[in-house]
Amino acid sequence: MAQVRDVAALAGVSPATVSNALNHPSKVSPDTFARIQAAIDELGYIRNDAARQLRAGTNRAIGMIVLDIGNPFFTDVARGVEDVLLDQQRPLILGNSAQQPARETNYLDLFEQQRMDGVLITPVGDVLDRLRRLRDRGTSVVLVDRMTRAKEFSSVALDDKMGGRIATEHLLATGRERIVFIGGPAKITQVKTRLAAARLAVEQHGGAAELTFVETDAMNAEAGRAGVEQLLALPAKQRPDAVFAANDLIALGVLQALTLAGLRVPDDIAIIGYDDIDFAASAAIPLSSVRQPAHDMGSVAARTLIGVIADPAGSKVQHVTLKPQLVVRRSTGG
Amino acid sequence: MAQVRDVAALAGVSPATVSNALNHPSKVSPDTFARIQAAIDELGYIRNDAARQLRAGTNRAIGMIVLDIGNPFFTDVARGVEDVLLDQQRPLILGNSAQQPARETNYLDLFEQQRMDGVLITPVGDVLDRLRRLRDRGTSVVLVDRMTRAKEFSSVALDDKMGGRIATEHLLATGRERIVFIGGPAKITQVKTRLAAARLAVEQHGGAAELTFVETDAMNAEAGRAGVEQLLALPAKQRPDAVFAANDLIALGVLQALTLAGLRVPDDIAIIGYDDIDFAASAAIPLSSVRQPAHDMGSVAARTLIGVIADPAGSKVQHVTLKPQLVVRRSTGG
Repeated sequence: MAQVRDVAALAGVSPATVSNALNHPSKVSPDTFARIQAAIDELGYIRNDAARQLRAGTNRAIGMIVLDIGNPFFTDVARGVEDVLLDQQRPLILGNSAQQPARETNYLDLFEQQRMDGVLITPVGDVLDRLRRLRDRGTSVVLVDRMTRAKEFSSVALDDKMGGRIATEHLLATGRERIVFIGGPAKITQVKTRLAAARLAVEQHGGAAELTFVETDAMNAEAGRAGVEQLLALPAKQRPDAVFAANDLIALGVLQALTLAGLRVPDDIAIIGYDDIDFAASAAIPLSSVRQPAHDMGSVAARTLIGVIADPAGSKVQHVTLKPQLVVRRSTGG
Repeated sequence: MAQVRDVAALAGVSPATVSNALNHPSKVSPDTFARIQAAIDELGYIRNDAARQLRAGTNRAIGMIVLDIGNPFFTDVARGVEDVLLDQQRPLILGNSAQQPARETNYLDLFEQQRMDGVLITPVGDVLDRLRRLRDRGTSVVLVDRMTRAKEFSSVALDDKMGGRIATEHLLATGRERIVFIGGPAKITQVKTRLAAARLAVEQHGGAAELTFVETDAMNAEAGRAGVEQLLALPAKQRPDAVFAANDLIALGVLQALTLAGLRVPDDIAIIGYDDIDFAASAAIPLSSVRQPAHDMGSVAARTLIGVIADPAGSKVQHVTLKPQLVVRRSTGG
């Protein structure tokens, strides 16, 4: 396989000049650069990233650990990251923790062994010490969609308080009074924050409005269906007139269970979801939702990370919070 | 940062023994291994994969290029790959071509620069020459879900002919006679094969049964909605009594458009999709579908690739075809 010295010989320059052309093209005259490029093409030389990585001590790849690659919300975030990294010629190594701390640790081990330049993570387990160690060994870290108690890592998150409030205010403004919030487990930060904001909005609205909480054991369609079973067991008069689902997957399960039970959406019961994944707009009754700027969050996180990598000591810790947006569709009468 | 020689000194062994413990643990006695492990922990030594990679000439990571990371079918395949690779301590570098040849080439460039051990690809452009070059430079290649004219690379694919046939036979067996196939563009291999198999099944059934083809410009929910608009323009008597959608995303769009137009599924029109993504089962009217063993396909592809990597010259080229399965739900009267 062709080496730098072969390229240098064919181009009639020193190996150091070839190295400059590869790493600092502006230091080389256009003529020389063209000669070197022609030699590279002719010899089929490929720069060996392993050698460069060894000299630099790090790996240009960026590692990313997401909670659930089966949820389109996270693939939207990953696409936002990927769009930025592709421009930078940095490959994205995507790991799916599937919400299991053991898988998360496994990926962190791999990333540490690979001495990557940077890691984006939505933590599931208690990994703060691991992240500190990564950072101390030269890997930059940015948190995505989840804050930790420690504010020492830059983070990009979404404003769940605002999301919970605008969804609930929309239901109240369209005349709904008996709202049920379906989601869980309750200890998940997003569920906790959205529910608290919904409660506050109902209190501030006053009058006859009330909010009930049906806790689920997961954030998927099956959990939504199970949640509806509890509602259907109630006497018709006590049934809610609106469901606020903690995410769109739950909302899709709620829509299915209500449809199969012969209830009309939105006439009998309105539904609003959260995330605005593509499947919300293409549901049989298009679902209202709270749009999360998932793709933007990925892009902002990737750009923040690239800033930290460029200047690990100098870059200030930043906590960016992106705002969600109400999307009204037919499931709430839109 | 701690080096192998520091570990060796602390454990009271030679550097070669430390190297054996890291690379061939069975060559080292349990006692020695425990001493070395303790030294590694105490010093915080981390093996440098860049150095190892440089010596070996390749990178343990596996690159994978998928067509559309927003389609759950492909994330299911990726999860199947990931489950196998995680056991092998090999990171997965996932790239999304988004069906754009330029993005595909970009990822192949990165994978070539990184000198990866292996690449899994569902090709979109004409990349046969690129794949040959990758292979000649020591990167093993396995094709996923798509055959090329050249049979020189091992591949794992799905039996679309069988899938097209069983979906159509199911519609005919439940008394449907005017079937419309919605999907496209027609040049996509999967669309072509499924449609041809559907036509054949209708011909063999004989009688009054007929099949019409409505070509779409994409394989998503929006295309399904657009396809239904053409059907709704027909006089009621000429309307089909069944839709065979080329994938589940299209089927979801069809279900939505029919529901919003006041048509009943399955009473007026039955729908069957293809892939059996999670969203098919959780649609408002649960969708019948052709289940593709996506996760299995990913696992088989990963294991095939690992076999080729272990013995690039000796391993026989293999073409595995996995069988789909009919899943009957309410949208076809199940």
